[in-house]
Amino acid sequence: MKFSFSNPTKIQFGQGQIASINTLIPKEQRVLVLYGGGSIKKNGVYDQVESALDGYTWEAFGGVEPNPTVETLDKAVEQVKASNIDFILAVGGGSVIDGAKYVAASAKYEGEGWDILTGAHTVDDALPIGAILTLPATGSESNGGSVISKKATKQKLPFMSPLVYPKFAVLDPDVIKSLPQRQVVNGLVDAFVHVCEQYLTYPQNAPVQDGYAETLLKTLIALGKEVDNPDDAWRANLMWSANQALNGLIGSGVVHDWATHMIGHELTALYGVDHARSLAIVQPSLLRVQIDTKKDKLAQMGKNVFGLAPSDDIAEKTIDAIESFYQSLSVATTLTEHEGDQQSAIDAIIAQLEKHKMVALGEHQAITPEVSKEILSLAVAK
Amino acid sequence: MKFSFSNPTKIQFGQGQIASINTLIPKEQRVLVLYGGGSIKKNGVYDQVESALDGYTWEAFGGVEPNPTVETLDKAVEQVKASNIDFILAVGGGSVIDGAKYVAASAKYEGEGWDILTGAHTVDDALPIGAILTLPATGSESNGGSVISKKATKQKLPFMSPLVYPKFAVLDPDVIKSLPQRQVVNGLVDAFVHVCEQYLTYPQNAPVQDGYAETLLKTLIALGKEVDNPDDAWRANLMWSANQALNGLIGSGVVHDWATHMIGHELTALYGVDHARSLAIVQPSLLRVQIDTKKDKLAQMGKNVFGLAPSDDIAEKTIDAIESFYQSLSVATTLTEHEGDQQSAIDAIIAQLEKHKMVALGEHQAITPEVSKEILSLAVAK
Repeated sequence: MKFSFSNPTKIQFGQGQIASINTLIPKEQRVLVLYGGGSIKKNGVYDQVESALDGYTWEAFGGVEPNPTVETLDKAVEQVKASNIDFILAVGGGSVIDGAKYVAASAKYEGEGWDILTGAHTVDDALPIGAILTLPATGSESNGGSVISKKATKQKLPFMSPLVYPKFAVLDPDVIKSLPQRQVVNGLVDAFVHVCEQYLTYPQNAPVQDGYAETLLKTLIALGKEVDNPDDAWRANLMWSANQALNGLIGSGVVHDWATHMIGHELTALYGVDHARSLAIVQPSLLRVQIDTKKDKLAQMGKNVFGLAPSDDIAEKTIDAIESFYQSLSVATTLTEHEGDQQSAIDAIIAQLEKHKMVALGEHQAITPEVSKEILSLAVAK
Repeated sequence: MKFSFSNPTKIQFGQGQIASINTLIPKEQRVLVLYGGGSIKKNGVYDQVESALDGYTWEAFGGVEPNPTVETLDKAVEQVKASNIDFILAVGGGSVIDGAKYVAASAKYEGEGWDILTGAHTVDDALPIGAILTLPATGSESNGGSVISKKATKQKLPFMSPLVYPKFAVLDPDVIKSLPQRQVVNGLVDAFVHVCEQYLTYPQNAPVQDGYAETLLKTLIALGKEVDNPDDAWRANLMWSANQALNGLIGSGVVHDWATHMIGHELTALYGVDHARSLAIVQPSLLRVQIDTKKDKLAQMGKNVFGLAPSDDIAEKTIDAIESFYQSLSVATTLTEHEGDQQSAIDAIIAQLEKHKMVALGEHQAITPEVSKEILSLAVAK
């Protein structure tokens, strides 16, 4: 086991913590508040931010969309440059925070910002970012990852940099109160799959990482059962689980498999499927196709997470249990939101994967386009 | 649940990672290598450090003792000032790293360094520290805590500051290979009790924190069974568990009870009992005396950690299982290393606790000197 791990983001967890941001942003810095569709203006979060920023020089940029696009974000980059912004305060979910990372890095780069996504530019400088999380799901509030889309080409690509970790992340569970149920469920499923991507590979004698992952999976399943009756503790536990699911800790020193995400991204880019729902569509089929390489870890998950009794088909039963978990949340596990017939949907997704060089996915780099096609054939509704 | 959590220490985990320190200490900084009794000169660690520091201006200070004393460390402070040291590199276990924190803070304070321990001075500046861990146990390599002793007065007191977190911590499991078995066992027990101090209080609906704690406890118990047959994975898992046990994460947002540590410190200060062994002496008796307030969490631990079946006396059985765990490692659970008779030992410990204002310990601040006396009466060998 060999790895480097650090997570410099300061977590400010709990009710009322939005007010603490004025102790975390230097007073003399010019702040850009980046936000999304405006729900924060209805649920009181914008007012809290406004009040916490009293005495600062700040301005706002709204309209960052789910699956944030370079087309929108480049306008924020222009504003950052025109107003000599020193600090980006992201107020939103993973999309806004991912967007803030792009803006922070692109503002310090003279070329086309999209170069950061294609790999033509490696981030070497970025403005500091702070995050006020309004939707627990992606973990973006305390990691160095970001996923950005390009509307013009229907692309959705990730970048990572240690320079875009938020300096702080405010996790106030009260923000969940005003969220539509669909978004809460999406967050829960997204966090669940994030854990799986770092856990469901093969045994590596890493009991700390495995036990942490199983803890998060069990917590998320238990929360799923009470999704219609959330209380303060429910909201706090969802928020903490989703954060822990993707802050780098549980995946340190173990092999990952992000194939579900990579295939799911194409579903979102092509057909506008919600991110979390794209994962629920792909993952059960991916696990069924990959069962031979994943069977030991599936058996472990069945025993430790779902409490299944030992059996010859425990790996299959574990996949069934995962799929049932999504379905219990009314999340579909087959693709129904695409246009046109099944075969052309599959062909379009495979073409995109090839275009994005996603041709050797999985923990053994064995998920070729041919295997992805097999997975999609299972996942696309008949 | 309300808390702030951040841990800025960069973890460099794995075999061969000592060499990476030259990427982590700025080249122009003057380095003081702080170490202990000299075992690092025999096991090759000193040579690796020397080779990694090639090109740096550096000097060394050896002789930091277990339960490091202000008397020794103040000499290091003098050397730091005389040589204009910029960076303290601690190479050792918790004692050396704790000592480095004191030296780093004291070097930036004009008054008596001991003021930091008494609380007369709050740390407001400190030299940067790096840690090369040679004994997994205390978690000091990535936290802001330090415990320092004063020989003259037989005192052992803690201080904490966000300014003394190491900038980096090298965790190379190979360093365990040359450790005496007694020290490896001490580390295992120390880490186990660290987890218990943050977990064995009362249920707070914090499944992530609880599950993480239970993961570490189960891992440490499993490692204890193989203590005579360690391999690379064994060493790596011990090192990662001990680090996770006290880096602030598992205790975020939940109530703690550090009474075992506070009472144990007095055993070490008065009778020279190894730190970990002082904890094994105090804890089972403390749990028995405190069983009413801790019974729900003891039952949870019995079920989730030891796999005990539900029963009316599951809390008692859990304490028995904890005690058996220590005994299976040949660690005593009664005080046999004190001088003189039982009653005067108890009186001496209680007098020290009162002197150090440790008069309202435990998660309910209900462990008065009277209760500590009851605990010690159970813990002192007949």
